[in-house]
This record gives sequence, structure tokens and C-alpha cells, in this order.
Amino acid sequence: MEYPSKLVEKAVEEIAKLPGIGKRTALRLAFHLLKEEKVSVQHLSQSLTDLRENTVYCQKCHSISDEPICHICASAYRTSETICVVEDTKDILAIEGTSQYNGLYHVLGGIISPMDGVGPQQLNIQSLVERVQAEQTKEVILALSPTMEGDTTAYYITKKLKEYSVKVSTIARGIPVGGELEYTDEITLGRSIISRVNFELED
Amino acid sequence: MEYPSKLVEKAVEEIAKLPGIGKRTALRLAFHLLKEEKVSVQHLSQSLTDLRENTVYCQKCHSISDEPICHICASAYRTSETICVVEDTKDILAIEGTSQYNGLYHVLGGIISPMDGVGPQQLNIQSLVERVQAEQTKEVILALSPTMEGDTTAYYITKKLKEYSVKVSTIARGIPVGGELEYTDEITLGRSIISRVNFELED
Repeated sequence: MEYPSKLVEKAVEEIAKLPGIGKRTALRLAFHLLKEEKVSVQHLSQSLTDLRENTVYCQKCHSISDEPICHICASAYRTSETICVVEDTKDILAIEGTSQYNGLYHVLGGIISPMDGVGPQQLNIQSLVERVQAEQTKEVILALSPTMEGDTTAYYITKKLKEYSVKVSTIARGIPVGGELEYTDEITLGRSIISRVNFELED
Repeated sequence: MEYPSKLVEKAVEEIAKLPGIGKRTALRLAFHLLKEEKVSVQHLSQSLTDLRENTVYCQKCHSISDEPICHICASAYRTSETICVVEDTKDILAIEGTSQYNGLYHVLGGIISPMDGVGPQQLNIQSLVERVQAEQTKEVILALSPTMEGDTTAYYITKKLKEYSVKVSTIARGIPVGGELEYTDEITLGRSIISRVNFELED
């Protein structure tokens, strides 16, 4: 396709590098921006640069942060007795969205995956062990994806933490709330039977 | 949702302003950019600014252009005898993609739509009339959308050009190539019967 302008072509190329955005969508977005106010496009462009240049990783939990210590780690209202281990900062957002957790986090920055060449050394596991030692953590909650890689990572971390007096738990796996029993896949259903819990009447 | 960083929040807000991109997709894109090289993000950001700040409208055809006169208008290889009238620069890209047209273009910058407060005065119609007069155009091809607004605009332009010795035509409407007769809507099928053409055997 011949573009009416080299600058349009360049912008389309750059936008189309984003995941899930093809040439056609990129072109639509470029033409949208052409009709926007100059200042709006400047804001967008500036926010992307700021995002990449001015964010850092929290020195304690390795989450994306504006400050050397993130606002969760720095908060006086959160209990430091539990550390929830997640793969990525995105997972923190998801868990924070539930309002069910008031402890700290630890971002691994990935998951053990020999196929992709990611071993324990590439992840923030050593710093987790050090935190558990230094902060006298009572419980480490593993909130990893229920996949082969997630299970491998959970197993590795559990072994590493064995020598310290810290409880290691994993988030519950089972039938999603609102899910239908007959449409649940066999592995999930099987696991939910094995991991059954006592049914308690609330008073 | 509480974001781990104000800069992430700002970027997500800005990205989510783009059409067809919601908060979730914006978040996914922001986290993608966080993992990209700084220089890639700079290129993206710079290309968006350049797109908006350094493109102009061609003085002749009103298409998006890098120069005061666009490369199609400036080309010595294109016939100036025909002008194809389109709503938007995007339509030029679509027509150029067919490699079936070798004339010039004229971008209206919209379509007559009283509902949206767009009248002939807001569009580049007067400059089209002046071009037809000045350039001794032989044919004006109207390539507008087959909608009520497209038809109204076509009608208005045809009336305006009536006093000049220029042929006015419109691109053919009918069953799309590869379309099935029985699934074609009634209006399209009806029109394609009215606008039937002689079936000629190629020698």
C-alpha cells in the first residue's frame, strides 16, 4: 500500500508493532490522531515516554513504581506478615481489585519456563528468600497461574523456603464462582474434588 | 482500580482515549511498553508527535501530505483529466490499493450530514469546483459511501458542476465480487438490477 505521507507510514508501522494491533487498526488509529487536537496527541506521546523512562522497579517487591519503594511496600496500613508472590505487576492490580488482601507483594518478573530459557536465576526468587529471612514473614501466598510452569515455580519456591519457619500457601483452585459444573473441564473438576474444603454454616 | 504508579495510570488513561481501545487493552499495551526497549518507545512516541505536528493538507486535493503539494498531485505520471472525489484520505489509500486508477483525487473532508451539522460549506466542495474550472477536468468520479449522506453529497456536487462541461460519474454499486446472490440485501440487489450493464464477450 502506498501511503499519502511518509509520516503516516512511519506512525502506522510503529503503532502496528503493538501486540494485537494490525496494520488496518494502526491506520484507523493514525487517522484518528490526525483529527485530534495537537495538545491531545502531545499528551498521549508524552505519557508513553514518561511511562517507559520515569518508572522504576520497587527495590523491595520489584513491582512497577514511581518511587524507589512502591506505595504498597511503603504503606503503614498493610501487614508485613504475609507476602503474596505474583508473576507480574499486572497480577497485583488484579488482586488489589478484589480488596481481599492487605499484605505485601513480591513480583517474580516471570515464571520458570525451561522452554523459554527462564530459570530460577532470571527471577526475583533469591530476593524473596532474603525478604522472608529479614522481615520475619509469617506466610507466603503463591498466586501463580495454574499451569505447568506455575506449578514448577511454586514447587521451587516452596523448597527454597523450607528451612525457614514460614507457612507457604497457594491460592485456591476450583470451579469459578458462577461456573457450571457440567461445563468445567475435567482437570479443574478433579482438582476441586481433591482440594475439597469443609462446608461451614455461617452463624 | 488502584495503579502501582501514577505514570502507568496516566498512560492507560491516554491510550484508552483511542477509539476501540478500552481500559483493559490499554493496560495490556502499557505493560507491553514497560518491557520494551526505551528507544522503541521513543520511536513510537516521536512518530505520533510527528504524525500530528508535521503533516499538512495538500493545497490542491486536501489529502494528508508531507509537502504543500502531495506526491499524487505532483506526479507527472498521473493524468489530470479525471478527479476522483472521496470523503477522506483513507479512501485514497483504498483506491490506490486497487491499482485501477491513475488520475487525481479531491478529499471532501467529510460528507453532507445535517444530523451532525455538516453542510456543504464545511466541506472542500468550492475548491473542487474551482479545480474543475482551472484544470479543464474531463471527468469527476464520485467515490462516496453508498449511504443517504453519500447520495446527498453526490447529488449536491453534481448540481454544482452542472454548468461546466465535465462528465460526472459514480463508482458502480452492485453485488460484491464473490458475493452470493441469495444473501445480498434487497436494496443492493434491486440497485444492481436497475444499474445492469451489457455483458460483453472479451475477444
